[in-house]
Amino acid sequence: MKLFPGSSSGSRARGDARRERRGLPDKSYSLPRGFRFAASACGLKRNKGLDLGLLTSDVPASAAGVFTTNLVQAAPVVLSRKHLRNSHGRMRAVVVNSGNANCSTGPEGFRASRATAVEVARRIGCARHEVVVCSTGVIGVPLRVEKILRALPRLAVAQSDSARDFAQFARAIMTTDLVPKWASASCRIGGKVVRLLGCAKGSGMIHPDMATMLAFVVTDASIAAPLLQRVVGEITQRTFNAITVDGDTSTNDTLLVLANGASGCPRVARASGNFRRFSRALETICHSLAMQIVADGEGAQRVVEIEVRGARSPAGAKQIAKTIATSALVKTAFAGGDPNWGRILAAAGRSGVPFKPERAEITMAGTRVYRRGRALPFSEVTASKRLVAPRVKISMDLRQGRASARAWTCDLTAEYVRINASYRT
Amino acid sequence: MKLFPGSSSGSRARGDARRERRGLPDKSYSLPRGFRFAASACGLKRNKGLDLGLLTSDVPASAAGVFTTNLVQAAPVVLSRKHLRNSHGRMRAVVVNSGNANCSTGPEGFRASRATAVEVARRIGCARHEVVVCSTGVIGVPLRVEKILRALPRLAVAQSDSARDFAQFARAIMTTDLVPKWASASCRIGGKVVRLLGCAKGSGMIHPDMATMLAFVVTDASIAAPLLQRVVGEITQRTFNAITVDGDTSTNDTLLVLANGASGCPRVARASGNFRRFSRALETICHSLAMQIVADGEGAQRVVEIEVRGARSPAGAKQIAKTIATSALVKTAFAGGDPNWGRILAAAGRSGVPFKPERAEITMAGTRVYRRGRALPFSEVTASKRLVAPRVKISMDLRQGRASARAWTCDLTAEYVRINASYRT
Repeated sequence: MKLFPGSSSGSRARGDARRERRGLPDKSYSLPRGFRFAASACGLKRNKGLDLGLLTSDVPASAAGVFTTNLVQAAPVVLSRKHLRNSHGRMRAVVVNSGNANCSTGPEGFRASRATAVEVARRIGCARHEVVVCSTGVIGVPLRVEKILRALPRLAVAQSDSARDFAQFARAIMTTDLVPKWASASCRIGGKVVRLLGCAKGSGMIHPDMATMLAFVVTDASIAAPLLQRVVGEITQRTFNAITVDGDTSTNDTLLVLANGASGCPRVARASGNFRRFSRALETICHSLAMQIVADGEGAQRVVEIEVRGARSPAGAKQIAKTIATSALVKTAFAGGDPNWGRILAAAGRSGVPFKPERAEITMAGTRVYRRGRALPFSEVTASKRLVAPRVKISMDLRQGRASARAWTCDLTAEYVRINASYRT
Repeated sequence: MKLFPGSSSGSRARGDARRERRGLPDKSYSLPRGFRFAASACGLKRNKGLDLGLLTSDVPASAAGVFTTNLVQAAPVVLSRKHLRNSHGRMRAVVVNSGNANCSTGPEGFRASRATAVEVARRIGCARHEVVVCSTGVIGVPLRVEKILRALPRLAVAQSDSARDFAQFARAIMTTDLVPKWASASCRIGGKVVRLLGCAKGSGMIHPDMATMLAFVVTDASIAAPLLQRVVGEITQRTFNAITVDGDTSTNDTLLVLANGASGCPRVARASGNFRRFSRALETICHSLAMQIVADGEGAQRVVEIEVRGARSPAGAKQIAKTIATSALVKTAFAGGDPNWGRILAAAGRSGVPFKPERAEITMAGTRVYRRGRALPFSEVTASKRLVAPRVKISMDLRQGRASARAWTCDLTAEYVRINASYRT
């Protein structure tokens, strides 16, 4: 397994340094075969930045998608779900615009997404239900689809399998993200090298609106769509569905994985060594992208990992971990490097999962601070110093079972409020 | 019904003006008969401020209590619940300390609460299970109960039925509240004037820790404890349980209502005109105190009322209202006066309550902004001006039924982060 330099969130410098333009993926790295990328600035973003990306597979690829669970779903989400069903999970292209979520935009919004899919299909020569459409940005503003339609012909011609064009694609899906996010991995399947490459956008908006998450992973492995969908669903629970920036589920969240088989490897079969290697490589990418999203969360200074151990069930462990990860009081304490375990315990206590507080233990950044119903003596100065690191780990052991779960969050800072309180126009 | 001047949250000046010392309750006002109050600075607060309050009824009063639903419960909460059960809802005294929540403090914490109740009982001459004990402040720090025990004898002697001592009591329960919170009302029962008087503390901490809420209401009405408990439970749902500052449920939340019958009025009977008048007066007080807590929420600039109408059930309406009220993105938008209805719709969409977004309507500060699945044209400048008022109303009509509910929240400001990110010591 091989990672782009700088693809893990922990190695990113903080603050203004994050605004630096991230270099291209390592040149020595070869992309998965049979995928092409392109990006352009079609005029949806005020700052004239890249706002339209196209990703295609030379041949139909097995596709697996995970979409937002919000009852309010943007037009492109509704359309893409339908296309995945109609094509029985065989897709050719993904087209993404940033700068507008095309959500709550009425029947015109649906027409805009459909027109986009039709135009992509015409330009690359496939059926329109082989095209996934994604949008991210402000909610409720009509999408100027004519700008997209005008840019697509050029994009379809310009696309290439170069690392540069992939990096441009990863930039075109950004909104207020400070850095592009990508990760890659490879593994051996039946003697062939299989490559996986992903990119994502996180919590930021060109006009602050919703923390819309998009992630795309392409691979030249060969795997049936239903099996791919199953493994993607499982991995999502441990990666993208285990992170939070502000607790608000977006109307446009989409994760899409495409596997086109272009590596020439044998088809990955259920419960095989190949399947385990492929799953592990895929999870590496999804985990890395999820961590990059948290690290680049709006106003975030640090990534906090919340581990809950000793629970009676994995679901209970996860619910407690996510309640702690979402607590405003816990997240503000992390902004100040405050070893305030009382807030962690209180958040766990309102999670709805039964446990015995007097049996539980809490460890913060390597220091055990709470045990058997009360505080342990510890140096608050030392603990506080450790808590201002870019990555911090908190562990809560319920001591009532063997299940565990992890969640990742960022700290809640005054900068988060500034970003989101500013008037949209 | 009569209210103290300035007892409603809307009339409070904002910002630094809130720090002014609030005057005594209107001198012309007479307190409910048969209750006494006292307060002192026993040394639990670093700033030497009032931190111990005593409230007694001359005769055993019917008592109703509502306590935190957090699994982690402070020692005084556990003890007071037990005392209410053992005394069959007949109580004589409430003793409250601020500056320390006495939560997660092990067996010593329970011994401290018990010793406090025993000392109060001895000084005023009642059984120890006729005493309610409350604490508010930092979690996990041992309570220096000897400071309380040393102050109690003087407090028991000093207590009086004056408005001044009531106001001191209301101040003694404060932590980082900027103003004391009180409200009063009266009604006629069987020809007699019955008085009700309440005070509360909200979300603030001497060492920022938990948003602990305490509220106490005393009345000289005569009403059986079980009936009082029922009406208090119902009113709590519409008042204290309908507000949020930061979504974190405290380990020490307590609402206690004492009715001692000293007005000489006939006993309030179920489903009578007297019962309706009494309930209305009680709800007036609880509503006013709840609004004062939101208005004085940490860092808050404004109170936002979220009304959800046209729902299929009251529970569904309330769940949507509370999800909107708790959303970090909605609350930061209110900090900036941003008419960002997309965030309101998206929060409703993740509430878990089924509704049709394309039927719903959203009105912000009198301007209808969303209808039938899309934005309505409106002046964002005008809407934004209205949204920076001290009180703002948002209404969402689901148009699928007749049920409705309201929730109240405050905006999420950089000041909230500053208060809660600062290191405790």
